Amino acid sequence: MIRAIRYLLACWVLIGAVTSSFSETVDTLHYTDARQLTLIGKPLPDGPFFHRVDTAGFPEIPATVKRLLTHSAGLAVSFRTNSTKIAARWCTSARKPGNNMTAIAFEGLDLYIKRDGQWQYAGVARPTTNECNEYTLVANMEAGDKECLMYLPLYDETISLQIGVEADADISAKANPFKKNILIYGSSIVHGASASRPGLAYPARLSRETGYHFLNLGVSGNAKMEPEVADMIAHMNMDAFILDCVPNSSPAQVTERTANLVKTIRAKHPNVPIIAVQSIVREGGNFDRSIAERVDAQNANFKHEIDQLQQDVDDLHLITADGLLGDDHEGTTDGTHPNDLGFDRMLQKIRPAVLKILKQHGI
Amino acid sequence: MIRAIRYLLACWVLIGAVTSSFSETVDTLHYTDARQLTLIGKPLPDGPFFHRVDTAGFPEIPATVKRLLTHSAGLAVSFRTNSTKIAARWCTSARKPGNNMTAIAFEGLDLYIKRDGQWQYAGVARPTTNECNEYTLVANMEAGDKECLMYLPLYDETISLQIGVEADADISAKANPFKKNILIYGSSIVHGASASRPGLAYPARLSRETGYHFLNLGVSGNAKMEPEVADMIAHMNMDAFILDCVPNSSPAQVTERTANLVKTIRAKHPNVPIIAVQSIVREGGNFDRSIAERVDAQNANFKHEIDQLQQDVDDLHLITADGLLGDDHEGTTDGTHPNDLGFDRMLQKIRPAVLKILKQHGI
Repeated sequence: MIRAIRYLLACWVLIGAVTSSFSETVDTLHYTDARQLTLIGKPLPDGPFFHRVDTAGFPEIPATVKRLLTHSAGLAVSFRTNSTKIAARWCTSARKPGNNMTAIAFEGLDLYIKRDGQWQYAGVARPTTNECNEYTLVANMEAGDKECLMYLPLYDETISLQIGVEADADISAKANPFKKNILIYGSSIVHGASASRPGLAYPARLSRETGYHFLNLGVSGNAKMEPEVADMIAHMNMDAFILDCVPNSSPAQVTERTANLVKTIRAKHPNVPIIAVQSIVREGGNFDRSIAERVDAQNANFKHEIDQLQQDVDDLHLITADGLLGDDHEGTTDGTHPNDLGFDRMLQKIRPAVLKILKQHGI
Repeated sequence: MIRAIRYLLACWVLIGAVTSSFSETVDTLHYTDARQLTLIGKPLPDGPFFHRVDTAGFPEIPATVKRLLTHSAGLAVSFRTNSTKIAARWCTSARKPGNNMTAIAFEGLDLYIKRDGQWQYAGVARPTTNECNEYTLVANMEAGDKECLMYLPLYDETISLQIGVEADADISAKANPFKKNILIYGSSIVHGASASRPGLAYPARLSRETGYHFLNLGVSGNAKMEPEVADMIAHMNMDAFILDCVPNSSPAQVTERTANLVKTIRAKHPNVPIIAVQSIVREGGNFDRSIAERVDAQNANFKHEIDQLQQDVDDLHLITADGLLGDDHEGTTDGTHPNDLGFDRMLQKIRPAVLKILKQHGI
């Protein structure tokens, strides 16, 4: 019953958009359906607009992975406007945030505007309900044209989004501002579990800070390198692949599945760099020895597999775990998931390492 | 009705504790009521155990400030145990987290253990309901004695807390590990609004990193320097006062109230240092000119007041806003509240500045 009401509500929003040719004027704002603008961050182009991957084409992948790929993690709307105010109306599923997340990250929106050649924070849309919300992200801006990126919810399914600008302003699609395509396959850490807002998930930060298009294929708790998932990943047309998928696989699974994942990608993409990343230390293992031992085993097995593979597979690189979270043990929200401080430290190591590899390959 | 059920539930937990002499054995764990251990962080000693201040003694302060002082922000339980596992059962009010907070920060617990002379993260208790919860913060530790600090919820009222250790382990009160008393009066930023867990609010980090006892008098949205609040603060027996209360006061209120706050404290404490801190930049004002202008006016008026006061009041210091959040605009969760990255940057400036002042005063 609740589900039915939810979908009726979503339909009402969509019908409202359709009957007004995807735009309307209410409260001096003019709303445009995000489907008329440019969506970036989708590893495959088809399927429901706000889903990362249309898994109908991959029936064999685990059901949980299919569900997680409906989350809009890493998706962002690229547009330009001359409005001095930007608002949004959006609907998500009725799910509620986990206890290690803010609602803004889980089901909110995050706006960046380019200034002096750099993407800069402009405002968030704070959800007040778990389904449909309306919020002004920024107001009182200077006149003139603005290049914008609006990041979608990290951990929820986005059902609809309309972007509001002033009645006398215009808004239009802008091309993807980032070059090339680099997939990051990984756990909740890639997915963005404890980033405090959508634009602070680490693939999104990497894109803004390097100019490359990093795509978020984080599948919370389920980056287990299954053969069916490896096949799906190999279907994606990428210039590089980053594999940050150690945290969710048992040490035995790491040994069983790493070679297949790497070889499946390499078979379809003979020349692209593949960058393997060890798991960050689990701060929950700072005193809990069993947690610490498990991560050590995962990382040791992963390194062993990558070392072996490097004898046959060219252009395969490894970024090791040391130093990824700093040394004060303050970089996580819950002992597992980096907070924004932890992500910042990860990037201080991962960003230059990835840039160096891309440069080596002329990307 | 819901309120009645909530209090019945809390009473049930308390009665359970009382009838078993504040300890009991369930599921191989032995629970001790936190009221038998040492609570640190209370600016005044009396009143309900888990309230920061017993405002019954200050009837004139605003009702909202009274309510906010029931939140357990900055309170922590100091104890020692030889258990290899530490758990908690705790109840809070039925309130729910704001959209810029994690539930762990809002109503969860955060455990630190001293190792090699430093306080290190050990584990959190993740709430799964909004009232009473039970959680194992850490397990599988090495044998031996451990000095512990368990931080209480930042933004909720703590109604009860029992700490669980293994049945054959012991637990006992430990003295406050921090020296002197330094009050930080401030806004939601001091209160810890967007820290990802209780131990990452900035007063708590300052205590662990310096060894001084910083007390959290953050009153979210309501640090408005009212004369009645100034009187209450002056009643607190402190070795230093930090005033980080600019963000909640209008520019006019800053001008009207700063001098009274400083002089009221100075009258009761002739020789202690008073450290005034300008407001961090509001990242929401990165593009919104009206937000930026308001903060500029607040800070200009505050500096003017402090400059004037310094002509008559000795030992009054000012920490300016420049550089407090870095320069990439990524240090907040919502444009107002620092995320853990923003807090880290604040501390890189505030920590050495405060330490230098304390040293000058021989504290």
